[in-house]
Amino acid sequence: MNLIKMVVIGFGGMGSYHARDLIAAEAGAEVFGVYDIDPVKNKQAASEGFFVFDTLEAVLNHPEVEAVLIATPNDSHQELSLAALNAGKHVMCEKPAMMSSLELEEVLSVASEKELTFMVHQNRRWDDDFLIIRNLYQTREIGELFQIESRVHGANGIPGDWRHLKEHGGGMVLDWGVHLLDQMLFMIDCPLQSVMADLSYRLGDPVDDGFIAYLVFENGVRAIVEVGTSNFVKLPRWYVKGFEGTAVIKDWDLSGEIVKQTGHVAHNDLVPIQAGQGLTKTMAPPSEEATTCLPLPEAVADFDYIYANFAKCIREEAEPIVKSEEVMAILRLIEAIFESAKTQQTIHF
Amino acid sequence: MNLIKMVVIGFGGMGSYHARDLIAAEAGAEVFGVYDIDPVKNKQAASEGFFVFDTLEAVLNHPEVEAVLIATPNDSHQELSLAALNAGKHVMCEKPAMMSSLELEEVLSVASEKELTFMVHQNRRWDDDFLIIRNLYQTREIGELFQIESRVHGANGIPGDWRHLKEHGGGMVLDWGVHLLDQMLFMIDCPLQSVMADLSYRLGDPVDDGFIAYLVFENGVRAIVEVGTSNFVKLPRWYVKGFEGTAVIKDWDLSGEIVKQTGHVAHNDLVPIQAGQGLTKTMAPPSEEATTCLPLPEAVADFDYIYANFAKCIREEAEPIVKSEEVMAILRLIEAIFESAKTQQTIHF
Repeated sequence: MNLIKMVVIGFGGMGSYHARDLIAAEAGAEVFGVYDIDPVKNKQAASEGFFVFDTLEAVLNHPEVEAVLIATPNDSHQELSLAALNAGKHVMCEKPAMMSSLELEEVLSVASEKELTFMVHQNRRWDDDFLIIRNLYQTREIGELFQIESRVHGANGIPGDWRHLKEHGGGMVLDWGVHLLDQMLFMIDCPLQSVMADLSYRLGDPVDDGFIAYLVFENGVRAIVEVGTSNFVKLPRWYVKGFEGTAVIKDWDLSGEIVKQTGHVAHNDLVPIQAGQGLTKTMAPPSEEATTCLPLPEAVADFDYIYANFAKCIREEAEPIVKSEEVMAILRLIEAIFESAKTQQTIHF
Repeated sequence: MNLIKMVVIGFGGMGSYHARDLIAAEAGAEVFGVYDIDPVKNKQAASEGFFVFDTLEAVLNHPEVEAVLIATPNDSHQELSLAALNAGKHVMCEKPAMMSSLELEEVLSVASEKELTFMVHQNRRWDDDFLIIRNLYQTREIGELFQIESRVHGANGIPGDWRHLKEHGGGMVLDWGVHLLDQMLFMIDCPLQSVMADLSYRLGDPVDDGFIAYLVFENGVRAIVEVGTSNFVKLPRWYVKGFEGTAVIKDWDLSGEIVKQTGHVAHNDLVPIQAGQGLTKTMAPPSEEATTCLPLPEAVADFDYIYANFAKCIREEAEPIVKSEEVMAILRLIEAIFESAKTQQTIHF
């Protein structure tokens, strides 16, 4: 299979990461060139040996360019995607796909009309921590998971650039939220029943610097998705409850544990403990025989890597891993989150 | 000050704890006797040297009995409180005060009419873990607290007795919830704006075996109160975010930490870290100079112990620490929690 010749549009933190590390022969693609509106960034790209285009038109008119990777501020994703698709180029677009589901509808319609691949770089479906939890969800090693909590906590506020600005699509819902929500919907793979969300504006920015969303799925699963940028101590990255046990992944280093029940709890054997000013049998630790510790399972992706899948979609009409309807569902969920936070109401789907 | 002569009604787990450990001379009260409807429990009380009453009437008609402690299943609190008040006895009642705010209204009206003290045993206002967090809330040692998360996690389900039964007022909202909600409202001391709540029915009982409530206060503070009985790994007992740091109390043993920022975060110095499949500057750990670790402050109660206050209310017309309007607010909040969970709507006050 010939490598897909790609141009990276936007050579900032993410674009340069794609150019240097992600677009690679083993994933079926190669960097044909780079284009940024900022001459400083183009110079940087040239110094790293990338071919640099002078204008967007030059990229879009070049007959050998098959696809572009769009890694620009969020508010320019639609315009650039439409321009690329209309020029006959396939598109890999950084997340969030668009600023709204309406913007995305137009892009999907053009992609479909032109029979081109438009894919969103939801790369965190390949994160090891996520794959471990998805593995638990599927294998039911600690029983059916009924409560899944996914948190990303930092203490740096929003490091400063366009991510502070509303008009460029800044804020944590659109930044980290879109990843965590995508993971949750991809894993649970069931329609949403409702969402309640609240945004944090601790930094005084016009965009949210964190949020919490409480999701109820039609199959009864409850999920909490939370992003914080003023958390000097982190809560675990994942905290999940199954009918037979609890699993925790503390951090990106995949430290964590599973505690599983061994059999029925013998309530008669429970001895009340002193807890603060009171006694409690309910919250007493289970006896040693009642539970067992297990290591976390392996992180296994039973699906192709995103660029490999992108290449196969283009060359072999493969089924995309990140599907258009999934990307649409995430944007609609994000819109419901903003609506819930604004109205302080639970939103039902 | 003469000790308040009290009779303990209900000699189960809590009643016997009051009789043996809580009603004491240093707190201004003494156990005059015990009464339980179960002869086995009366026998147990007698074997421990307590005087045992044969009937409730005998308790209520005894001229020397000044007050009763009610520690019976929740659905009998109102009837027993009314009987005691109408017989001229002061009442200390186990939590939850009543099954509904309507029940409480009637009791408060009789107490007021008879000029007797009716107090609810919200003893967890004296828990060291709570006092530490309240101290942080008041001193603003890590800045204004704007997000306060209070969790009690166990893995034993509901140890079996009337706490499984709806008609007796079982379930975790009325059991542990009433404590955690009372602590939160007592500490934050500001009207509630809204609550969203969801109940867990994992055990298949007719009562909730856990819940989560998301509270928004008029002063902007957000609080999460959660009780779980199928949590084989615990999340921290307290997790609180201030404008200048984060504090965690892990468990009843008061292990935990405070991490506080030392000054402004230097965003330019932040180096992106690899986190899963992506790079992140936002979630990179702050530099070592950016934060400092502090020990948790002391647990200090700047108010009398509950029985001491109860005795002073009776003897010296002191201001009650657990006020009737606070107890009413908790019951109304609990009713809103049930309503929110049932309708899957956010309830506004």
